[in-house]
Amino acid sequence: MEKTKIGLIGLGTVGSGVAQILLDHGDRTARQAGRVLWLEKAAVRDPKKPRGCDVPDGVLTDDIDAVVADPSIDVVAELMGGVERAREVVLALLNSGKDVVTANKALIAAHGPELFDAARAAGRTIAFEAAVAGGIPIIANLSQCLSANQVESLTGILNGTCNFILSKMHREGAPYADVLAEAQRLGYAEADPAMDVDGTDTAQKLAILAHLAFGARPDWRAIPRTGIDTLDLADVKMAQELGYTIKLLGVAELTAKGLQLSVGPTLVKNGNPMADVSGPMNAVRITADAVGELFLQGPGAGQMPTASAVVADLIDTAVGRTRLTFQTLKLWSAESDRTPVADPAEALAKFYLRVEAADEPGVLAQIAAALAAEGISIASFQQQASEAATVPLVLMTHETTEGAVSRACEAIGKLKPVAAGPVRLRVVG
Amino acid sequence: MEKTKIGLIGLGTVGSGVAQILLDHGDRTARQAGRVLWLEKAAVRDPKKPRGCDVPDGVLTDDIDAVVADPSIDVVAELMGGVERAREVVLALLNSGKDVVTANKALIAAHGPELFDAARAAGRTIAFEAAVAGGIPIIANLSQCLSANQVESLTGILNGTCNFILSKMHREGAPYADVLAEAQRLGYAEADPAMDVDGTDTAQKLAILAHLAFGARPDWRAIPRTGIDTLDLADVKMAQELGYTIKLLGVAELTAKGLQLSVGPTLVKNGNPMADVSGPMNAVRITADAVGELFLQGPGAGQMPTASAVVADLIDTAVGRTRLTFQTLKLWSAESDRTPVADPAEALAKFYLRVEAADEPGVLAQIAAALAAEGISIASFQQQASEAATVPLVLMTHETTEGAVSRACEAIGKLKPVAAGPVRLRVVG
Repeated sequence: MEKTKIGLIGLGTVGSGVAQILLDHGDRTARQAGRVLWLEKAAVRDPKKPRGCDVPDGVLTDDIDAVVADPSIDVVAELMGGVERAREVVLALLNSGKDVVTANKALIAAHGPELFDAARAAGRTIAFEAAVAGGIPIIANLSQCLSANQVESLTGILNGTCNFILSKMHREGAPYADVLAEAQRLGYAEADPAMDVDGTDTAQKLAILAHLAFGARPDWRAIPRTGIDTLDLADVKMAQELGYTIKLLGVAELTAKGLQLSVGPTLVKNGNPMADVSGPMNAVRITADAVGELFLQGPGAGQMPTASAVVADLIDTAVGRTRLTFQTLKLWSAESDRTPVADPAEALAKFYLRVEAADEPGVLAQIAAALAAEGISIASFQQQASEAATVPLVLMTHETTEGAVSRACEAIGKLKPVAAGPVRLRVVG
Repeated sequence: MEKTKIGLIGLGTVGSGVAQILLDHGDRTARQAGRVLWLEKAAVRDPKKPRGCDVPDGVLTDDIDAVVADPSIDVVAELMGGVERAREVVLALLNSGKDVVTANKALIAAHGPELFDAARAAGRTIAFEAAVAGGIPIIANLSQCLSANQVESLTGILNGTCNFILSKMHREGAPYADVLAEAQRLGYAEADPAMDVDGTDTAQKLAILAHLAFGARPDWRAIPRTGIDTLDLADVKMAQELGYTIKLLGVAELTAKGLQLSVGPTLVKNGNPMADVSGPMNAVRITADAVGELFLQGPGAGQMPTASAVVADLIDTAVGRTRLTFQTLKLWSAESDRTPVADPAEALAKFYLRVEAADEPGVLAQIAAALAAEGISIASFQQQASEAATVPLVLMTHETTEGAVSRACEAIGKLKPVAAGPVRLRVVG
C-alpha cells in the first residue's frame, strides 16, 4: 500500500490527539484513505516534555524547518496556534510543496485571502475543517453537501466555553463571574478567556462560515459583536421566565441589501433546537432554498473531537478530495467575493429591552413614546413588583431595525426616571 | 467552461425538483462544480403529461434506451423508483459508461453488492446521498467527514411519514388509524403506506447506514423490525405520562459480538434530542470514538430536500470527488464486509411492558416471578385505577436481553389473569 507522509507542527492537546489516531488506528485511516497515513515528523518546542501520546523515536524535532524542508512529507497539520508565526510557517510549508491542514480559525480569519492565494500559486491546498465548530463537520457540509442550495441564513453556537457558562447560569442561577471561575477550574475556559467571552472567537468563526455559505469576505473585526462578559444574571432569569434561553449566537442572514452579520447573547425561544444545546456543545442551524432547514449539533472543542476533524482533513487531502474541492471553490479569492456585507444598522430583528426605572407615574409613557418615535412596536411588556427604589421594566419589541432600536435606547437611557439601561438583546423564535 | 451532460430517468416529484435546480440555477451548480451541469435528456413514461418544471424542447423522451445509448451523457440520475426494472436500467447505464446517481434505497438495499461490483467492473461510480434521510447529508458525513472515527452507535428517525403520524398521535391524542387517514389527505403518507408504517423503509435505510458506518453487510430482511401500524394509543399516552416520546427508531450498535440492529417504536426519554424531532423531520444521532456525539436533523423527504441531495451527488460526480471516494471505500464489495451481524436475541436494552390483567390479588406477583425467572430486574412499576374489568399494569425494566424479555413476555402472556399483552417496546435514555 502507498504511503502519505504526515508532518505535525505542534503537539499540544489537539496535536497529541491527532498523533494518537495516526499511531493507534493506522488500519482505520488506511481503509478510509486507501493508503497508509504515516506520521513522519512532529515539531515541538521542547522534545523532552512528557506528552499524552507515545511518539516513536525520531519523530519529534524542535526544528520546524526540519519539517518544512523534508521533501518526503506530503501533508502537514499546523496545530501550533497563534497568528503571525503560524502564517509564516504555513506560507513556508506551501512554498516547499506541502499541502496544509489547519485548525487555526484566527489565522484564516486574519490571513485567509493571502494564504489561499499562496496555496493556489504553489499548486497546493489548505483544509480547515477543525477551525470551526470542532467535531461538527460544518466546513464539508457547507462547501460540499449543500452545494445545490442557496443558503439563506446560518445561526451558530460556535463557542463551547460561552455555551458552558450560559448553560450553568441558566441552570444554577449563578452570576457570570462565579461560573467563569468554575469553568476555568474545570478546564472549560482558558486562564485568559477574553477572546472567547467577548465574542471575538465567535466572530472569527462566523466570518469563515459566511465565506463558505454566502461567498462573502467579511472582515471579522467589522462584525457587530457583544460578548457574554457583560451579561447580567437578571436578564438570564427574566429570559427564563418569558420562556427563552440565552445563547451566544453568531448569525448570518442574506437580505436584499447583502449579508447581515452579528454576534451577541440572544434570547432563543424554548422549542427552537438551539435553546436545548447545552454545556460545551456547539450547533449550527442552516436554512437554504432546496433543503429547507438543517440542524447539526456536536462537540465544539476538546482534544479528540478536534483531532477527528483534523484527521478527516488529512484523509481527504491524501485521497485527493481536498484538491478537487479547493480548485473548484477558489476560496478567499477575489473571484469568490460575490456577496456584499450589508449595513448592520439595517438588520431586522426583535429585541428584548430591560430598563431600571423609578417607580413613578408616566415612566412607561415616556419609554413607549421613545420607541414610537422610532416606529418600534411593542409586542409585550412586563413590570415586576420590587421593594427597591427602582423597578425593572421589560419590553419585547416586534421586528425593527438595529438602527431604530439603537436610537430609541439612547433616548430611553437619557430619560430622567431611568436609572440604568436599557439592556438590549436580540430575540429569535 | 466545460460541460457535464446529465440524464434523468424519471421526472416525478423528485425528478422535477432536480430538473428545476439544474435549469433555474445553472450559475450556482457551475460555481460549485467548476463546470456546467447540462440537462441533456429526461426519460419519462408519458412526455405529454404536464410537469412541475418547464423542460426545454428535445429534453423529454419516452425511451430510456435513448438515455442509455447517448454517448454524450456523462452522469444519469435514476429517479424512477421500483426495484427490478431500476436494477436493469442502472446496470445498463453503468455498462454504457455512465456514472449513476440514485435516490433508490430499496434498490441499494436489495442489490447493493451486485450494482457496486458492476460499477467497479465498468470503471464507473454510484452515488446515493438521497437514498437515506432525504436532505440530511448522512451518506457524506459517514463516508467522509467521520473517517477518523470508529462509529460505536447510530440511531435514526429515518421515516418522515411515521414521525409525522407519531407526532400527531402524541400531540392530539388521536389513534393511529385516524392520524394515518389525515396524513394521507395531507400528502404525508402514500395511498399504500405499508412499506413506511411497517418498518420496511426504515430497515432498508438502516441496512445502508450500517454498511457505511460499520462495514457490515446486513440483509435488511433479517433486521428485527416492528412498525407503528400496531401501536396502541394507550402506550403513546402512557409514555407521555412517564416522560417519554415514542419514535420509530432504527438502531445500530457495535458490540463485542458484532453489530446489533433493530427497528421499532421506542420510548425516547424527553431531553434526548431525538424526542424533539417532530413532524416529517428525520434525524440521526451518532456516537463515535473520536468525535463523541454528533446529531443531525433535517427534512427526510419531500421534493426539494431530496433534489438537494441528488444534485449534490451530481456535482460531486462531475467534480470527481465521487470517483475518489468510490474507489477508496470499495462499498458493498466482499472486502468491505468486516463486521458480523450479532444475534438479535443477545441485544441489550431496557423495555417498557404493558399488560392488561384482571384486578385480583397475586397478579403482580406472578408477573414479577416470570420476569425474575429470566433474570430481569424491574426499574419501575405503575398500575392505573380503572373501572374496566381489567387494569393496565406498566413496567419498565433495567437493561436485559431481547431473548430474556421475549421468553418472559411469552410466559406472562400465558398467565391466567392476563387478558392482553404484554405490549413490549424498547426504551432509550
